[in-house]
Amino acid sequence: MASKGLAIIAGVGPGTGASIARRFAKLYSVVLLSRTPSNFEPLVQEINSSGGQAIGISTDVSDANSVKSAFDEIEKQFPDSPLAASIFNPGGGFVRKPFLELTDEDYSKALDSQAKGAFYFAQRALPLLLKAKDSSPHPPTLIFTGATASIKGSAQFAAFASGKFALRALAQSLAREFGPQGIHVSHAIIDGIIDIPRTKQWVLPHEDAKLSPDSIADSYWYLHTQPRTTFAFELDLRPYIEKW
Amino acid sequence: MASKGLAIIAGVGPGTGASIARRFAKLYSVVLLSRTPSNFEPLVQEINSSGGQAIGISTDVSDANSVKSAFDEIEKQFPDSPLAASIFNPGGGFVRKPFLELTDEDYSKALDSQAKGAFYFAQRALPLLLKAKDSSPHPPTLIFTGATASIKGSAQFAAFASGKFALRALAQSLAREFGPQGIHVSHAIIDGIIDIPRTKQWVLPHEDAKLSPDSIADSYWYLHTQPRTTFAFELDLRPYIEKW
Amino acid sequence: MASKGLAIIAGVGPGTGASIARRFAKLYSVVLLSRTPSNFEPLVQEINSSGGQAIGISTDVSDANSVKSAFDEIEKQFPDSPLAASIFNPGGGFVRKPFLELTDEDYSKALDSQAKGAFYFAQRALPLLLKAKDSSPHPPTLIFTGATASIKGSAQFAAFASGKFALRALAQSLAREFGPQGIHVSHAIIDGIIDIPRTKQWVLPHEDAKLSPDSIADSYWYLHTQPRTTFAFELDLRPYIEKW
Amino acid sequence: MASKGLAIIAGVGPGTGASIARRFAKLYSVVLLSRTPSNFEPLVQEINSSGGQAIGISTDVSDANSVKSAFDEIEKQFPDSPLAASIFNPGGGFVRKPFLELTDEDYSKALDSQAKGAFYFAQRALPLLLKAKDSSPHPPTLIFTGATASIKGSAQFAAFASGKFALRALAQSLAREFGPQGIHVSHAIIDGIIDIPRTKQWVLPHEDAKLSPDSIADSYWYLHTQPRTTFAFELDLRPYIEKW
Repeated sequence: MASKGLAIIAGVGPGTGASIARRFAKLYSVVLLSRTPSNFEPLVQEINSSGGQAIGISTDVSDANSVKSAFDEIEKQFPDSPLAASIFNPGGGFVRKPFLELTDEDYSKALDSQAKGAFYFAQRALPLLLKAKDSSPHPPTLIFTGATASIKGSAQFAAFASGKFALRALAQSLAREFGPQGIHVSHAIIDGIIDIPRTKQWVLPHEDAKLSPDSIADSYWYLHTQPRTTFAFELDLRPYIEKW
Repeated sequence: MASKGLAIIAGVGPGTGASIARRFAKLYSVVLLSRTPSNFEPLVQEINSSGGQAIGISTDVSDANSVKSAFDEIEKQFPDSPLAASIFNPGGGFVRKPFLELTDEDYSKALDSQAKGAFYFAQRALPLLLKAKDSSPHPPTLIFTGATASIKGSAQFAAFASGKFALRALAQSLAREFGPQGIHVSHAIIDGIIDIPRTKQWVLPHEDAKLSPDSIADSYWYLHTQPRTTFAFELDLRPYIEKW
Repeated sequence: MASKGLAIIAGVGPGTGASIARRFAKLYSVVLLSRTPSNFEPLVQEINSSGGQAIGISTDVSDANSVKSAFDEIEKQFPDSPLAASIFNPGGGFVRKPFLELTDEDYSKALDSQAKGAFYFAQRALPLLLKAKDSSPHPPTLIFTGATASIKGSAQFAAFASGKFALRALAQSLAREFGPQGIHVSHAIIDGIIDIPRTKQWVLPHEDAKLSPDSIADSYWYLHTQPRTTFAFELDLRPYIEKW
Repeated sequence: MASKGLAIIAGVGPGTGASIARRFAKLYSVVLLSRTPSNFEPLVQEINSSGGQAIGISTDVSDANSVKSAFDEIEKQFPDSPLAASIFNPGGGFVRKPFLELTDEDYSKALDSQAKGAFYFAQRALPLLLKAKDSSPHPPTLIFTGATASIKGSAQFAAFASGKFALRALAQSLAREFGPQGIHVSHAIIDGIIDIPRTKQWVLPHEDAKLSPDSIADSYWYLHTQPRTTFAFELDLRPYIEKW
């Protein structure tokens, strides 16, 4: 089973990351990266006990050494598995504050979690994706998760928007450099509230007004399966009721 | 079989429109609109003889009366079929010329084919889509086909880009007005050369360098099947090798 | 005085157009185009009686023949004046309505006033601007007036946004084609309520919350005076208090 | 003379920064920040000897403490001068390399020079700008210098584009938060080669094909003098011959 394709998902909590992991685990072995093991442990167990293959590695994506260790471990555990998909779905760095109340740490954290984390992740994932070009069942894929703040710097979002804009710049640059090498680089703009445990309490006037994480995962899977004649770079996903 | 869902595709030639028709005919009855009957006749026969259901109606989308007649005919022939999907995939109005050589007719034709055509089409399709909300297997969908010229007004593309920008404006406005009513309005930016009979002769240095019409159709189908928690408005599709 | 530079302003009512005319009349002879003579007559008199030179020509910019007649008249009256600036500042086509209540005429009128009008205007202005390259005191300039609806298709703005998007496409295409020939083509996005007689009644909670037409005119003048090493294509102008 | 208005320019080399300093020194005392004193020393002398008032402070904008010291020094030296304009015109972090050859340091440096530097600078400048609201001759202004890489992540520009996108996010967020408080926040996209000593050797086929730094400075000055009814947020400046 070692030569089954591999998917790496960075940023796995109870929301989108978990849904993505479940979706990609239908075809691939999955590696889940999260700082907190409790974020991936139940999911690893769930996937493994239902016929899939999953491992979790405690990783701080904003720390170059931690990302390095994670990928070293991945290459050791899956030496023959072509990397079919790698998904950067970071949760860190969100902060909403009047600008003059932002601390240096707030601002750095947003850049570190989003932009630097993506940089470290992509630098280790891309060589593996390139190597998988002929063995991956679908074009090797690198997807970044964006947000409304990826394209609009709203008041009080200076830190988070800086991180998300930077992440989008990185995604564009990688799509333009690695697309012609057969790697599918995409950026998904998640515009709205995701329906996860933390947001259950927010009661909205309409049903289905929050993004379903499983449906986000379906969209990521769809991006992954696109042939190279027809790569989508960017996709904006929002609930039907969302103002934009 | 009258209550099978219905899909209407405006702009059916030998390329994308035909692939979209074949794709949507797997689940729906399809109505093909094109000015020239020879554009849809073989396809209608192909779909009908392989277990699907298709009709073609000779229609000039840039003519309000012609669109009116087509929809009157559709409602007569499919009185009980919920309109699940309507796709505006117009071919007309393309022209590339130094600005001072453009004729009034060149410019008008681009606006008429793209913007006015879409307006007439949407005004007739939307009431049917709204009526189909509870009976369509997927959220009733209205997709517009865009191009590179939808987001960039290049030199010598004044006419075509004006039409395509206007079409995108219309799509955005409809998405914002009818999304909250449960209609999925999308705009696909097709960025590159489509692999159709007319472009076969253009030999490119890389394989798979032209967009596959079948794969474009798959993307349209994917958009159609998205649940309303996770509507994508815009999708850019291009060959991996395309510069952008 | 025949060889004084010339400025043509299309779309002169009591607001921005009048301010632009006054501003450009400080250096140039000005030609004011408007459908209704009462829109330009007092202004023509005002400019002429205060040392400037102005004429008005009743023109429907959405009518090719009317634009043709106006330019024929301009060339007859100012045979030796280099065309230094031409400004397309159309007022027509605004409509805000639920999409299904829009008439064909509403939609056509928006396209005709904005896009076709600009097309007719640019086709006659550009040859004169090109001819003025060496005699105009500043790079010959063609400025188009945009609006919020130039970059966002809001609900109920399908018609107006289609016209304004199309106008922006035209402006981009002309900037890319004629910029390298030394013509400065610009597009100004006016984002907010302009402080004109018609909007005086709208009382806003903050002072200075409406755009000053004189200040818009100053920005147009500034664009006009930029040297060709540093052309601005696009400028967004909004009151400090405006949400965007 | 202590109550003369003040302008602070961060990023002063032999190019745009120097031109901006000279332009703003016509009305204001100017403070020039640059890591290398030799970057500002001749300019300080030039301005002071020609009737203006200038000081230079050696500052590393990517270092929070260095920015802190600089502003402490400014407040000490100009306790009564209203801060009329602050301009962030950073030079650091440019790098063009295949992505897999970028070092962690390359990437961090781009973010630090552009995004974090701007953050530190804005956090110290904004309280002074707010305080100057009633005493500054023009609305207190904060301008950020962008580049092509601010809106397009090109291949091999992952690091620089990340920094420039982040900077633009910051600028947007500050414009939306502080605009309503009367502060004019702008972002200028400099799209092309600037005509500075370092680029003199690049011979282009057309004259005037490089951006004049003095003319960029004029545009910044123009932005600064706009009244609050008509703030421009974004301006793209490019030579007439530039492809875009």
